[in-house]
Amino acid sequence: MSGPALPGRVVALSGGVGGARFLDGVARALPPGALTAVVNTGDDFVHLGLHIAPDLDTVMYTLAGLADETRGWGLREETFATLAMVGLYGGPDWFLLGDRDLATHLVRTEALRGGATLSEVTARLSGALGIQTRLLPMADGPCRTMIDTLSDGTLAFQEWFVGRRAQPAVRAVHFEGLPPPAPGLIDAIDACDLVLIGPSNPYVSIDPILALGGVRAAIARKRVIAVSPIVAGRAVKGPLATMIHELTGQPPSAGAIARHYRGLLAALVVEHGDQGSLDGLPSLATATIMHTRDDRLRLAREVLAFAGALITKEPA
Amino acid sequence: MSGPALPGRVVALSGGVGGARFLDGVARALPPGALTAVVNTGDDFVHLGLHIAPDLDTVMYTLAGLADETRGWGLREETFATLAMVGLYGGPDWFLLGDRDLATHLVRTEALRGGATLSEVTARLSGALGIQTRLLPMADGPCRTMIDTLSDGTLAFQEWFVGRRAQPAVRAVHFEGLPPPAPGLIDAIDACDLVLIGPSNPYVSIDPILALGGVRAAIARKRVIAVSPIVAGRAVKGPLATMIHELTGQPPSAGAIARHYRGLLAALVVEHGDQGSLDGLPSLATATIMHTRDDRLRLAREVLAFAGALITKEPA
Repeated sequence: MSGPALPGRVVALSGGVGGARFLDGVARALPPGALTAVVNTGDDFVHLGLHIAPDLDTVMYTLAGLADETRGWGLREETFATLAMVGLYGGPDWFLLGDRDLATHLVRTEALRGGATLSEVTARLSGALGIQTRLLPMADGPCRTMIDTLSDGTLAFQEWFVGRRAQPAVRAVHFEGLPPPAPGLIDAIDACDLVLIGPSNPYVSIDPILALGGVRAAIARKRVIAVSPIVAGRAVKGPLATMIHELTGQPPSAGAIARHYRGLLAALVVEHGDQGSLDGLPSLATATIMHTRDDRLRLAREVLAFAGALITKEPA
Repeated sequence: MSGPALPGRVVALSGGVGGARFLDGVARALPPGALTAVVNTGDDFVHLGLHIAPDLDTVMYTLAGLADETRGWGLREETFATLAMVGLYGGPDWFLLGDRDLATHLVRTEALRGGATLSEVTARLSGALGIQTRLLPMADGPCRTMIDTLSDGTLAFQEWFVGRRAQPAVRAVHFEGLPPPAPGLIDAIDACDLVLIGPSNPYVSIDPILALGGVRAAIARKRVIAVSPIVAGRAVKGPLATMIHELTGQPPSAGAIARHYRGLLAALVVEHGDQGSLDGLPSLATATIMHTRDDRLRLAREVLAFAGALITKEPA
């Protein structure tokens, strides 16, 4: 018998930092062009007249090897001269716009104003940065992730996340505007051998993608493996642990992730020791926290080998 | 007899660098609030979706003490991180946008998009920089200085000046769109004791202001003194000397400036030795090149004293 077949074409869904790092590993573990990354744009917003796509930018910078890994967002060797001057003018300086980052927003916004779609601009920008992975924003049209809070009414994601530091307790999450999925997105899913869901926040990073017309149904026809963003009961980054508690009344656990994606997953990749709560869902337990670029590649290889073994085990 | 009366209220017309430096001297030579600066906006253009007002910015940065005096444009201690990244994306990097400068364009463009007028934004930005001089853009609406060239057809000013380095020979200059003068501009002229025309390019910096409805007529009722931007047959900065030759067939001289403003000037301030070509127009010959901030103040005091003497000499 031969070893497990590596999946040939892979679609991976991602939010920002954690998902981006996982994508970077998967991209490097696969042959060039084998990965299509589908990135959440529900957090996109207009700031100082600029179209800002935080998750798309994080993924782009991470895949290009330009991300600041220590700070966890933005570009390496970034400066903030524009932002300081905006503050001097009394302009809005709550969103930390770096000088180089600003170029992304300026060039993108100008292209969109000129009639290009977000998919087209994303292909152009990621190409200019030398990225070989196909990067798809989840949609070209606007979709806004809205946070219904207990104390402060309904807030757009960035208002809640950056503007209020994710402090107001979350009652529910909904999406305003459900544009068609980006051109080629459904086709990419249909043509793939494996769908991966990165270790991103399910409520605000993955659900917006799944909410778009036809996406969940297309994914449900495929082998889907997610990587848990909850490790030993805590979120690796961001407000997810608190959100799970607020939205489900349950403590945060890998099991909460498994239940959230119920009906969709063939397996969940969890941290060593986190298998207990999975109610029998197949799992791969390994070291899931990606401190280094080597960690990303190692995790991606393990997940792909695990997926290959799953595919091999079951009839086509 | 008392000495010559200093003019109480002064309006000064200005383009970029030379005019801005003169304004800085005049502002410091007069009591706070005595000067209204009227600045050319014919060079304004939209770049990367941003409303850029080169002369207004140069004046603002100069009056705020933030201008880079060595380079002759932009802000001191400026960086160009955004521009480098725009270039990496293959975006337009021919216009040298500094990182701090960019904040001016972002905040201005955002305010204009929000419904503020250019006058209102200018008051807000210059106030934030601590400028006490009243700064008026010549108009709130768009006026474009167009350069009719011999070789390259008609170009917008920045296309010609920056994009083609002012190389194509100029056949004529005209203005597209003549909006009403900025609110308060005509009133400021009507109420003033003296109009100064800074050492700016008459064709592309001062003529756009004079072309606006009612401005020339209002100025013609006042005592007007200009400072020659031509010194010993050469322009202190920029393409003016060549333009005079191309547009009038005459060699560049202070006399060419005097003839250009014919019927408007009570006197011209010229460099020592440049009085010869003035055809009897009253003049003040002094050192007009402003190397230092002290030079600006000295020149401004001389011009104001000269104006005071002229006013005292003639019947009201």
